[in-house]
Amino acid sequence: MTAIRAHGSYDAHDITLSEAITGRRSVRNFDPDTHITRDELVGMLDEASRAPSSVNMQPWRFLVVESDEARKKLLPLMRLNKRQTRDASDLIVVFGDLECYRKAERIYGQAAQRGIIPTLMAKAQLAAIVPAYRKFTRDKMTRVVHIDSSLMAMQLMLVAREHGYDTNPIGGFDEDRIAETFGIDPNRYVPVIIIAIGKARKPGHESYRLPANELIWWNDVNALESGTEEQQEKGRLS
Amino acid sequence: MTAIRAHGSYDAHDITLSEAITGRRSVRNFDPDTHITRDELVGMLDEASRAPSSVNMQPWRFLVVESDEARKKLLPLMRLNKRQTRDASDLIVVFGDLECYRKAERIYGQAAQRGIIPTLMAKAQLAAIVPAYRKFTRDKMTRVVHIDSSLMAMQLMLVAREHGYDTNPIGGFDEDRIAETFGIDPNRYVPVIIIAIGKARKPGHESYRLPANELIWWNDVNALESGTEEQQEKGRLS
Repeated sequence: MTAIRAHGSYDAHDITLSEAITGRRSVRNFDPDTHITRDELVGMLDEASRAPSSVNMQPWRFLVVESDEARKKLLPLMRLNKRQTRDASDLIVVFGDLECYRKAERIYGQAAQRGIIPTLMAKAQLAAIVPAYRKFTRDKMTRVVHIDSSLMAMQLMLVAREHGYDTNPIGGFDEDRIAETFGIDPNRYVPVIIIAIGKARKPGHESYRLPANELIWWNDVNALESGTEEQQEKGRLS
Repeated sequence: MTAIRAHGSYDAHDITLSEAITGRRSVRNFDPDTHITRDELVGMLDEASRAPSSVNMQPWRFLVVESDEARKKLLPLMRLNKRQTRDASDLIVVFGDLECYRKAERIYGQAAQRGIIPTLMAKAQLAAIVPAYRKFTRDKMTRVVHIDSSLMAMQLMLVAREHGYDTNPIGGFDEDRIAETFGIDPNRYVPVIIIAIGKARKPGHESYRLPANELIWWNDVNALESGTEEQQEKGRLS
């Protein structure tokens, strides 16, 4: 940590990408007394939202659970992770907007206004993209918003490190009820992942990763399977 | 860029997280003469694989398209992005393994062997996780592997920057035929995203992002919708 970058009313410390990636741990024990200002949280979400998305449609939407009342609503929907729900500074429920193309005109219009793309090109792209997106099946669009929202979520977890915070990505919650519980239209918004964020009271532990070279097919398929079976043998619990 | 980190036989330059995030662009025009060694590519995949995944199951699998023959197979499956398919150093087709729980014993066994978690805890976690994972519907598991693989893919795009490379995330390809075209079992592996990687011949262009504060519900749902409609008006193409 060398330089300090100013972001509105708060400071973020520059860390290397490598530090952010290798230093990130899933933290389950947060300091309940740490409060993150809305200004700082929005700053982190803005940086995370630099993530790419399919045709730049940015389908991520955020339900930020910070009040005691909202936590009480969320708690019974969590399969585990009850402690994080109480103690994390915020729980960011990331939803994917299945009607994200409703913002296409705004996105492409702003890009044109700012001179990023010529207006004619913006119009041509809109004319191609929006009808194609409208035709997606619910299943297809669900997959697209899962991918895009997860790209953003990964950046959010790294950006949190830059701000001195830790995170816990949570997938175990009642997907079928979370939208309606918070008055969100479940036909339009699908929940993807919850990111708990705050200051660690106890550090997260290291975790093991499979070597990538065992997970690769180089131009053909045979390499992976053979390596895999052999390696499974070696790693079996005794 | 200050320090240089040695990774096997190649060098990665330290960059700040902020540089990696704000400097990343989707590049569509790659230098066809740039070759990335398998050693360096595996190093990048290993760093990207530090991403978290649901119960650490690491469902990401990689089909690395590098040979001319493999590119020829891939080309007709690409909706657009034909040039990247020819010119990028590699195209990494990220698949999600719907039977990722087959590696659970290896993952938890290795974690126990390395003293990361006690052996008894590893056994208890395995006994809880594997049966639960086996019970997932195909739809549910598809969503899980999409999330986890996308978290990894985002880190891969950032890590590429550390190595002086650029990327292009590609979602427009023939999802129904890509596994079989390469002899991969389509019942077990679902394609998630393709990451083209190489050296940019022409830099990617900037792109517009919606301000995060317009995409947030603070504990309740009403804030987002109102802001959205108003903002859509402002951004409409004339």
